Amino acid sequence: MDKRNIIIDCDPGHDDVMAILLALANQDKFNILGVTTVAGNQTLEKVTLNLRKLYTYLGISIPAASGSAKPISRELVLGDAVHGETGLDGWDFPEPTFELDSTNAITFMYDKIINCDGKVTLVPVGPLTNIGLLLSTFPDVKEKIEAISLMGGSIYAGNNTPYAEFNIYVDPEAASIVFNSGIPVIMSGLEVTHEAGILDSEIETLMKKEGRVSKMCGYLLNFYVKFHHAEGYASFPLHDVCSVMYLLNPEIFEYKDLQVEIDCSHSIHRGRTAADNREWMKYEKPNTRVLLNIDREKFIQILFNAFEKLDKICDR
Amino acid sequence: MDKRNIIIDCDPGHDDVMAILLALANQDKFNILGVTTVAGNQTLEKVTLNLRKLYTYLGISIPAASGSAKPISRELVLGDAVHGETGLDGWDFPEPTFELDSTNAITFMYDKIINCDGKVTLVPVGPLTNIGLLLSTFPDVKEKIEAISLMGGSIYAGNNTPYAEFNIYVDPEAASIVFNSGIPVIMSGLEVTHEAGILDSEIETLMKKEGRVSKMCGYLLNFYVKFHHAEGYASFPLHDVCSVMYLLNPEIFEYKDLQVEIDCSHSIHRGRTAADNREWMKYEKPNTRVLLNIDREKFIQILFNAFEKLDKICDR
Amino acid sequence: MDKRNIIIDCDPGHDDVMAILLALANQDKFNILGVTTVAGNQTLEKVTLNLRKLYTYLGISIPAASGSAKPISRELVLGDAVHGETGLDGWDFPEPTFELDSTNAITFMYDKIINCDGKVTLVPVGPLTNIGLLLSTFPDVKEKIEAISLMGGSIYAGNNTPYAEFNIYVDPEAASIVFNSGIPVIMSGLEVTHEAGILDSEIETLMKKEGRVSKMCGYLLNFYVKFHHAEGYASFPLHDVCSVMYLLNPEIFEYKDLQVEIDCSHSIHRGRTAADNREWMKYEKPNTRVLLNIDREKFIQILFNAFEKLDKICDR
Amino acid sequence: MDKRNIIIDCDPGHDDVMAILLALANQDKFNILGVTTVAGNQTLEKVTLNLRKLYTYLGISIPAASGSAKPISRELVLGDAVHGETGLDGWDFPEPTFELDSTNAITFMYDKIINCDGKVTLVPVGPLTNIGLLLSTFPDVKEKIEAISLMGGSIYAGNNTPYAEFNIYVDPEAASIVFNSGIPVIMSGLEVTHEAGILDSEIETLMKKEGRVSKMCGYLLNFYVKFHHAEGYASFPLHDVCSVMYLLNPEIFEYKDLQVEIDCSHSIHRGRTAADNREWMKYEKPNTRVLLNIDREKFIQILFNAFEKLDKICDR
Repeated sequence: MDKRNIIIDCDPGHDDVMAILLALANQDKFNILGVTTVAGNQTLEKVTLNLRKLYTYLGISIPAASGSAKPISRELVLGDAVHGETGLDGWDFPEPTFELDSTNAITFMYDKIINCDGKVTLVPVGPLTNIGLLLSTFPDVKEKIEAISLMGGSIYAGNNTPYAEFNIYVDPEAASIVFNSGIPVIMSGLEVTHEAGILDSEIETLMKKEGRVSKMCGYLLNFYVKFHHAEGYASFPLHDVCSVMYLLNPEIFEYKDLQVEIDCSHSIHRGRTAADNREWMKYEKPNTRVLLNIDREKFIQILFNAFEKLDKICDR
Repeated sequence: MDKRNIIIDCDPGHDDVMAILLALANQDKFNILGVTTVAGNQTLEKVTLNLRKLYTYLGISIPAASGSAKPISRELVLGDAVHGETGLDGWDFPEPTFELDSTNAITFMYDKIINCDGKVTLVPVGPLTNIGLLLSTFPDVKEKIEAISLMGGSIYAGNNTPYAEFNIYVDPEAASIVFNSGIPVIMSGLEVTHEAGILDSEIETLMKKEGRVSKMCGYLLNFYVKFHHAEGYASFPLHDVCSVMYLLNPEIFEYKDLQVEIDCSHSIHRGRTAADNREWMKYEKPNTRVLLNIDREKFIQILFNAFEKLDKICDR
Repeated sequence: MDKRNIIIDCDPGHDDVMAILLALANQDKFNILGVTTVAGNQTLEKVTLNLRKLYTYLGISIPAASGSAKPISRELVLGDAVHGETGLDGWDFPEPTFELDSTNAITFMYDKIINCDGKVTLVPVGPLTNIGLLLSTFPDVKEKIEAISLMGGSIYAGNNTPYAEFNIYVDPEAASIVFNSGIPVIMSGLEVTHEAGILDSEIETLMKKEGRVSKMCGYLLNFYVKFHHAEGYASFPLHDVCSVMYLLNPEIFEYKDLQVEIDCSHSIHRGRTAADNREWMKYEKPNTRVLLNIDREKFIQILFNAFEKLDKICDR
Repeated sequence: MDKRNIIIDCDPGHDDVMAILLALANQDKFNILGVTTVAGNQTLEKVTLNLRKLYTYLGISIPAASGSAKPISRELVLGDAVHGETGLDGWDFPEPTFELDSTNAITFMYDKIINCDGKVTLVPVGPLTNIGLLLSTFPDVKEKIEAISLMGGSIYAGNNTPYAEFNIYVDPEAASIVFNSGIPVIMSGLEVTHEAGILDSEIETLMKKEGRVSKMCGYLLNFYVKFHHAEGYASFPLHDVCSVMYLLNPEIFEYKDLQVEIDCSHSIHRGRTAADNREWMKYEKPNTRVLLNIDREKFIQILFNAFEKLDKICDR
């Protein structure tokens, strides 16, 4: 079977790192065309530095580029309460030596997609600024995009506001472009990502491992859960991982195909991914596959296997 | 135990009639101070005529008054697709002889409440225009209102729009006054009312009965379910009945106490009862008891018993 | 010629006092049915106390009642930066002995209007909460209202925000009811009220007078202009006076009849009186007479004459 | 003196053509780096075809590229009532042979600007979609942009709605990016463009001329004014010409430097260029030079001279 061509657009970010690692460990299934960054969990400068550190630490050589420093319309809102001062607190990375592509993420993506033999799946796990600008500035790219498997949104309760999830809240105008693009969207919103949690005991297991990837993940997650402990969570959502995981193991998810629109108003619902939940409605053409549940234990097992596989590769 | 003083504010409407009947059958528990009308399911003129017809048919003598012909801010939206041309199609009522109180519903309610020895519970099952104006025009009334058990809203999916339930959608500005009033609100929204459904077979049972109340209800519901059949329902929500039923038999309901605010914007979410569903939040003081589920069989049994009780009284 | 029946609805407030005085001095032309208060320049408690003080100081016996302590939908915004801690700083009033009508302003107005032989003109010079509630709660009153001569709005530049004038900004939902009521509206907005200014030299003239009304006005205005000095004004707008003045001397005004709607959104334009200024448009039925300019010298002369007339009456 | 580097972004459109001609006739003052198209007066396809026809008719060889077929967030609204079925009705152009640059307008602009020795002035006279996307996708371009002299907006009365001018209304989100970019904006809004009108007699003069440019302009304008005759205009605004004219002859304009923000809400004010008109305000840093008036006769004279100059060049 052919490999799936993917581009990961991210703002690392702890769970972003796990999502990248899951993809890296599955290069027999993925042809990773590139990784791009966007402001969100932290400033563009910081998340881009984090990506370069990760690349250097793991010896990755997949092309990467940095993108938008602020949302299309609004001022930047940061997720620094969760991800710390650097945006990736918890592990001591070496000085980065990896160099980014000199072009910006949007033209970088455009070139990769246009020059790719087959169709490409986008995996945006931060605010959708880069993707929104890509689709608006280069609309001819749409016919070469297979699907967009994104982390963001929620249909029941938000996190950044009572009604809006962080990634969508940061750039609703960009999200609106994406959801209205006509390209199939797979939405890993809070309903599924809150079920995709890791337990304290599992983090401890990782921390005790010797492999340089598993151990790093253990320590990163050990920082990441501090915020969630304070908020009263018992299981710690690895949001971004879901978007990659669905492309590998769709069978461990439950979902519903729905009509989703983005609230770009300045009302209390700004940034809400409004889903038409009326169960008696039959849509002609729902625009979004909303993931709703996941087999948590299989999720963790597949993820840990990926870390172990990378432990072997990266220790060589 | 003392009787609960109540005022029913309604726009009859099929399910409004059932709600009134349930209250009438339980006058050992309720002291019904009055019944008032508001535009919603149909125009004020029509719903008020329907109330007078019902009163005349049953020989009721509880005071009644007619109120607002249009919402506070917006133009009137009608629910005539559900309730038919008269707003109460399906039964042939006699010409009404009952005469309303000459004052309007708002001063009517004010006088009843101020002159009542104890506190009063309001039971609005239509748009909240009358109640909003009562609380705004006569704020001194608030301290004499025990609770507001209303039919309206939804926290997951609307009916009039994908996000907004009809009663709240018709007059969001009035709803906002009610939910922000500081008075405890018990919200029978679509989550519970869609579980409070009647089956075709149960309607047939009613239609075959001899009692003038049960039989009338059977025929009214037989019309009412036509709309719902077309929409693909198997069970037909008796929305308004829930608001009275909760005051009689709270033990057959499941609920959650939540912070609810009304979206009065002109965005796609206009009229949504926005509930903060974040399960890890601990509210200091939630403003709304949101009813979420009901024991349907007990609900129908209690309702049918009420009809039978009235069959005996009204046949005398 | 018949006297015009008027009710003044106000939030005194310095310019409110001048508006009342102008009406009091012209009781050969006005039949003042009552004066009512509303929260705005200061809290309802304070502005009502101010009215009672004024009544007591001048020996007025026209019926008065107090109304709404907060806007229909939003939280109260105060104009205390302009009017000071009491809402009427600058003159030392005696303890009030005048007692208000026991009913609230809304039913008070309703009773006065319904029981009046002819039609009534409303003169609201504060936020429109009372008037909005009157028209909504008692819609039968509309046919007995001749016109509403209000102070509020602006079609070019606001004061409370860049786009919204204070009185309308405080309660846009009430304003929307008033402008959409079908009753002719005469709008004294900032365009005309900023031309209806008093000069420092004119205030000094008043302060030096012996009459108890002129002198009081001089001292009140001496406080009032402090805020305006700080803002860089050379002439100090006596906003509220315009609404009474137009009813007496329309010939000193310039105006345009326009279609005006109220922005009730929560956007940057919230509370703007949006006027359709397209000069090539021909309206079927403009809803508002927008006053645009005034002969300032005649305005001041008429006002000073009124004060002098009252000096004589009140000194007796 | 150095020539000013400019790029014209347009949606021809009758007045767009006049704006381009004015620039073409002044190549001693302008270094025209390129011309780009955007959907607005008509679809992208039609306005781009119109540009190619004009180029072919006049033998122009300045690089050109086509851009956005729809606004960033909303569906396309067309100005076809004014500009006719082709978007440039009134003159019979030859089949176009001119070929556009193969890249899209946004990367085209980016390349031209980045590779230009000096700074560049943008002259957008249609919706701001291309410019908004340029600034968002390539933010490094900002420091090389001297100013943006645009046609759009109004501070008193709109045309597409009572409050919003067409170009801004079509893409408010793009306009918001432009006005908030930090780049100086010169706004030729309806206040000035309605003063920049041409008279019937002047159009007749043009139609009688022999030069291929003057004559064409006469016939184009003869169509263009039909719509305006119907709307009751006596003088026909050559909107887009103002943006070029200001760069040549600023001395014939009156203006005010103001703080302008774009209303991106979905309220009645959507697309309004909200200007803070409070005359007593002193801005630290107004973001927009709002042109307010023009010497109409000099305007027409300069424009006609430009046509005549081109008559000579193009006839050769």
